[in-house]
Amino acid sequence: MKNLVAHDPWHVVQDGFDAENNRVFESLFSLGNGHFGGRGNHEETYSGDSLPGNYLAGIYYPDPTRVGWWKNGYPDYFAKVLNAPDWKTLSIRVNDVELDLATAEVAEYRRELNMREGTLERSFTATLSNGVEVHVESLRFVSLPNPELGAFRYRITCATDASVVITSAIQGDVVNEDSNHEFGFWDPVREAAQDNRTVVVSKTKKTEFVVAIGGSLTFAAEPEVEATTFTRSLYAASTYSLNVSAGQTIEMVKLGANVTSRTVDPSLVEDRCNQVLDAAETKGFLELLADHIGAWERNWETSDVQITGDPGAQQGIRFNIFGLNSTFTGDDPDLNIGPKGFTGEKYGGVTYWDTEAFCLPFYLATSAPEVSKNLLRYRHRQLGKAIENAEKLGFTDGAALYPMVTINGEECHNEWEITFEEIHRNGAIAFAIFNYIRYTGDSRYLVEGGLDVLVAISRFWAQRVSWSHKRACWVMLGVTGPNEYENNVNNNWYTSLMAQWTLRYTLASLAETDADSVPDVSPEELARWADVAERIYLPEDAERGIFLQQSEYLDKEMITVADLDSSDRPLNQKWSWDRILRSPFIKQADVLQGMWVFEDRFDLPTLQRNFDFYEPRTVHESSLSPSIHAVLAVRLGRLDKALEMMLRTARLDLDDYNNDTEDGCHTTSMAGSWIAVVLGFGGLKIVDGQLHLNPQLPPGWDGLAFQILHRSARLNVSATTEEITIENQSVTPATLFLAGGQLTIAGQEMVNVPL
Amino acid sequence: MKNLVAHDPWHVVQDGFDAENNRVFESLFSLGNGHFGGRGNHEETYSGDSLPGNYLAGIYYPDPTRVGWWKNGYPDYFAKVLNAPDWKTLSIRVNDVELDLATAEVAEYRRELNMREGTLERSFTATLSNGVEVHVESLRFVSLPNPELGAFRYRITCATDASVVITSAIQGDVVNEDSNHEFGFWDPVREAAQDNRTVVVSKTKKTEFVVAIGGSLTFAAEPEVEATTFTRSLYAASTYSLNVSAGQTIEMVKLGANVTSRTVDPSLVEDRCNQVLDAAETKGFLELLADHIGAWERNWETSDVQITGDPGAQQGIRFNIFGLNSTFTGDDPDLNIGPKGFTGEKYGGVTYWDTEAFCLPFYLATSAPEVSKNLLRYRHRQLGKAIENAEKLGFTDGAALYPMVTINGEECHNEWEITFEEIHRNGAIAFAIFNYIRYTGDSRYLVEGGLDVLVAISRFWAQRVSWSHKRACWVMLGVTGPNEYENNVNNNWYTSLMAQWTLRYTLASLAETDADSVPDVSPEELARWADVAERIYLPEDAERGIFLQQSEYLDKEMITVADLDSSDRPLNQKWSWDRILRSPFIKQADVLQGMWVFEDRFDLPTLQRNFDFYEPRTVHESSLSPSIHAVLAVRLGRLDKALEMMLRTARLDLDDYNNDTEDGCHTTSMAGSWIAVVLGFGGLKIVDGQLHLNPQLPPGWDGLAFQILHRSARLNVSATTEEITIENQSVTPATLFLAGGQLTIAGQEMVNVPL
Repeated sequence: MKNLVAHDPWHVVQDGFDAENNRVFESLFSLGNGHFGGRGNHEETYSGDSLPGNYLAGIYYPDPTRVGWWKNGYPDYFAKVLNAPDWKTLSIRVNDVELDLATAEVAEYRRELNMREGTLERSFTATLSNGVEVHVESLRFVSLPNPELGAFRYRITCATDASVVITSAIQGDVVNEDSNHEFGFWDPVREAAQDNRTVVVSKTKKTEFVVAIGGSLTFAAEPEVEATTFTRSLYAASTYSLNVSAGQTIEMVKLGANVTSRTVDPSLVEDRCNQVLDAAETKGFLELLADHIGAWERNWETSDVQITGDPGAQQGIRFNIFGLNSTFTGDDPDLNIGPKGFTGEKYGGVTYWDTEAFCLPFYLATSAPEVSKNLLRYRHRQLGKAIENAEKLGFTDGAALYPMVTINGEECHNEWEITFEEIHRNGAIAFAIFNYIRYTGDSRYLVEGGLDVLVAISRFWAQRVSWSHKRACWVMLGVTGPNEYENNVNNNWYTSLMAQWTLRYTLASLAETDADSVPDVSPEELARWADVAERIYLPEDAERGIFLQQSEYLDKEMITVADLDSSDRPLNQKWSWDRILRSPFIKQADVLQGMWVFEDRFDLPTLQRNFDFYEPRTVHESSLSPSIHAVLAVRLGRLDKALEMMLRTARLDLDDYNNDTEDGCHTTSMAGSWIAVVLGFGGLKIVDGQLHLNPQLPPGWDGLAFQILHRSARLNVSATTEEITIENQSVTPATLFLAGGQLTIAGQEMVNVPL
Repeated sequence: MKNLVAHDPWHVVQDGFDAENNRVFESLFSLGNGHFGGRGNHEETYSGDSLPGNYLAGIYYPDPTRVGWWKNGYPDYFAKVLNAPDWKTLSIRVNDVELDLATAEVAEYRRELNMREGTLERSFTATLSNGVEVHVESLRFVSLPNPELGAFRYRITCATDASVVITSAIQGDVVNEDSNHEFGFWDPVREAAQDNRTVVVSKTKKTEFVVAIGGSLTFAAEPEVEATTFTRSLYAASTYSLNVSAGQTIEMVKLGANVTSRTVDPSLVEDRCNQVLDAAETKGFLELLADHIGAWERNWETSDVQITGDPGAQQGIRFNIFGLNSTFTGDDPDLNIGPKGFTGEKYGGVTYWDTEAFCLPFYLATSAPEVSKNLLRYRHRQLGKAIENAEKLGFTDGAALYPMVTINGEECHNEWEITFEEIHRNGAIAFAIFNYIRYTGDSRYLVEGGLDVLVAISRFWAQRVSWSHKRACWVMLGVTGPNEYENNVNNNWYTSLMAQWTLRYTLASLAETDADSVPDVSPEELARWADVAERIYLPEDAERGIFLQQSEYLDKEMITVADLDSSDRPLNQKWSWDRILRSPFIKQADVLQGMWVFEDRFDLPTLQRNFDFYEPRTVHESSLSPSIHAVLAVRLGRLDKALEMMLRTARLDLDDYNNDTEDGCHTTSMAGSWIAVVLGFGGLKIVDGQLHLNPQLPPGWDGLAFQILHRSARLNVSATTEEITIENQSVTPATLFLAGGQLTIAGQEMVNVPL
């Protein structure tokens, strides 16, 4: 854990140059608009340690699988989100010396992410090796309203008269650091440079995505000289030579267009690139910026969370919401939420169960239904691949197993205990359909695709169980639950519970849907599903009154995390894998994950017994763990425990808690901290289609407010230690349950409930 | 399965050239002497598909580990036995055309491995592309009495007058096909060529073994011309140009010396190489050959098995005994038995549990005690590394976990479910000490090293178990038993039984050994070991009267191999790994392996119940499986079943049963077929230090005879369907039990017992 940024409600500020933590700051200062984005790399040349990253959503390379011992069914490749040609590239030479913060003497360095406006500002004074002092101010954004546009304004002032040579380039000779095989991923197609316009068109190897990255540099005051242009393979540049007087500021704007053949015909990417640049040039930087800030304002209107009395938590939750809204905007059902968003290249493939299990609730509550629906459509469009994936593992008759990791529907992961056995992901994908419908009321989605997915997943569960004569039950052998610190166990309670629920929900959904609109399922299949749901083994321990993580969990040594020496932690770095596996220690919520998903099924004493048993055995070595525990701790009235858990997630990246923010931010776990705050302390849940709220403030917080959308209502919920205020910002009345009591708030009205 | 070689009691004959199966024949025609050896590659140039292999025992390279997802505790490398510079290399150019069977027209091709004499003969007629017809006869051996010497005689006759250019070389520019990283493993040190003598000295990368490979070519009739010599990096050659008349035979002998710095100082390898060649030249080919044949004769005197009435079985068992005696001669405690011996490079590292569990019984019964003792010493010398290996996995206080795969004591394997969890290997290594002592009576070995190993392994078991409050037992969680088709299971009966036995044997051995000579073990440790042995959980099913392979085995679907479709087989090629794991199907003997190891503990009805339960669920997809089942089937009187099982192992390589003999022969499984015959049909076992025999012939066999050594006795046991004859070939009387009845046979006497 590091103390890199000061607490500030709307800003992330880096004060002073810090080459050592450059990669961490590059991650924190990432910008994205759901379609492309990149790390906070400097615009001008930087020869110090850096991880360059400009990522285009959905543009990947199938990196051949690396494995020691092959198992049948392993995928051939791991989809790698590619570092794409960079639109930002700038070179500034002053009296023949390159402006490069790694070699200059740097003073007054300040960098600031403005989360409210979605901008990254930077200013510094650098003394070059030739003694020339230059002052730079830049402001960058990745346009939210224009999904292909990035822009920055760059001001440079020399303290003495100087000759300045400025080169604006598209740099396409880029690599991925995290790749299984050592070669570039891009083939050149065409480079163009004319006047202030530079374009590089390139193509990904194997997948053959064609991408045009274009740049346009304009000076606020037209320079005296013409651009000199230059191209080579995967590179295009315009160069300007200027003579400036001491104190004179050169101001320039660079616009960047990022166009891919995912959205336009491959032959048209260059044209489209020029159109984007033409339109942006016409509009001008300040208007583009204003549009961008306006779009972020509208985002915050429906998704902001305000915490008073705890500036660290406030900054953390806003940083997380900012990250989520930068990563996924929900206007394209072929896109999803990568584990690092646009902040890094690690974990390549895009979609994990994180999307449904952790991210969906955020988008449901803060965006129009269409946004969440596109997450569901993503899986529906990949159903064919999920069926093929199941076939590779021996399943038949349309059973589907969604991949552990994917970008195009094909499995990318290659650890048998995860790829083949962490099948609970199928349950999360089924539950997301229910979750979407109960939140939005859009039950039409069942016939639009939901039932196809539910039926295919139910077929999988019904084939995946086997009959145990000994137990006279259906058993689920050889699985890995959410707790990845147990592998290949039998009867993981969470997995079997999700299977049982899927079967029952599918049966109920089929029963209540017009027979003409439903997939063909035989009566024998329906009967089998009902029987499996009825007689599936869900291990419990009657004596302790707890559900069992798996049927032999109680064979383990009954020690707790308190029995560990601090030198043992984190287990995943200190212990060998077998030792972790046979220990009782739990990586992340497992039984408790199930009790959260189905929280209304269990009474508080049951929750309490399970929480008291499992939480002390949980090491929370997954960033997805503390959030679920925070919600459950709130339910149990343990607000200080809940706060401890919430803080563990909220500042994970800002404080580089796991020492790995240099690789990028933990995008999907950002949703966890929103869950902890809004579903936890805010008490948001949907029961029988009804919105429930129950704000409770943890110790130290003076106030908590959050914005949500629910059906036609836009609500501003605000709690202090004395009262709860709910403002209905829509015109139609909103009915909801507050701390269990029903109330209706008229349009544009506000209610106050004293505590 | 292929039908490549005709049944023949003492020979393996290839009749006709077969380029397609060249690699298979190269494996079958391998020769070795325990110190070096190689595949049946042609001496002269061969440009067709081939796997060149000249292997020097103990000379390896640490090939960096390749793995997709790293786990703490994984080794950094996999020790790769290296393909070494080749001493055999010969080039024959006739009228400027290379003799190369891949490009010539080949007739009358015949190759014959003479297993009795340990020689490989070859003859063929080849018509070269220039129309010249040449006839070749060669005879090759790898000297058993001279561990550094190989030799061949090569006769070539041209049908017409011709100019013949002969080059005898040492070819050091060799690679391994099966390597994780693509670069050569040898660095050049020095090359020398003078007259008929060529030497290449080279050094392995990283491990820095220095190796000198030398060759000496002599002609039966001195040729008219001098040798022209040539060297380049890793290559040295002598070339001779001769003019021959039609029908004239050129006869030459090439001697090869293979010297390594494992046995002489690195600076002296070249000198030693020349000494070996000098001495061999002085002795001459025929005397060297006679010495070699004599050594093989002595081998057969103590290890031969004769089966009459079943020529396929006869050939198979001899081929296996030949392979075992070619691989390990037991005069160096740093050597062991590689999975492919000197017949291929696959599975690189040398030592698996196969050595103790499968190979040791063969060497015990057919060689002097020193041979087996060196297998024990090998582990004793690596005890420090085994303790370090256990420390990497969190064990303390001198606990040892021997590696799954090793060449120098360090673990090489990198699959967590095997490397960290297939810990029963520790049991086999402990049991080997007991097995050696009960066979040889050499109980002094306990203080010479046995107890050190037993104590360290007992420490491991005592730490590896954990206490289950639920069962009120010590449990062994997260293991992989001999059946590798279950991973990470709890309470594998075989593993826990081996642990229990080790603890008890160590306690007993400590108690009966003079206190001054034993390792320091505290009373608390002794008490813990006794308690663990007493209260370890050994799962059983009372209803079925069987031991349970693991505590949840009966949760599995109770189907058998008979329920499988033939398209499902072999499972390891047809099913995904998770499907195999959750199925009831068993790769190789597991519970039954334990019942074999401790066969005198269990009555026949118990064995029968377990055999009847497990064998029908066993797919025998390990070459180590059928042998154990064969022995148990004999015990149960199911001689036809036993024969079926025995034949599955005996001709595994000769018939290329698994379609993988091209990679090399299954050396360690060869011991399994000897076990099936001698321990199975021969009924050999040791009970309370007493030799027991109980020959029983399966249907179709007219006679079975085998030679064994036991203590001071050399016995020739021979059974027909009518009588059993035992001849004591030693001078001292031998006492033994025959079919349960005790008898003593005077020296040089023979007894006949009618059936």
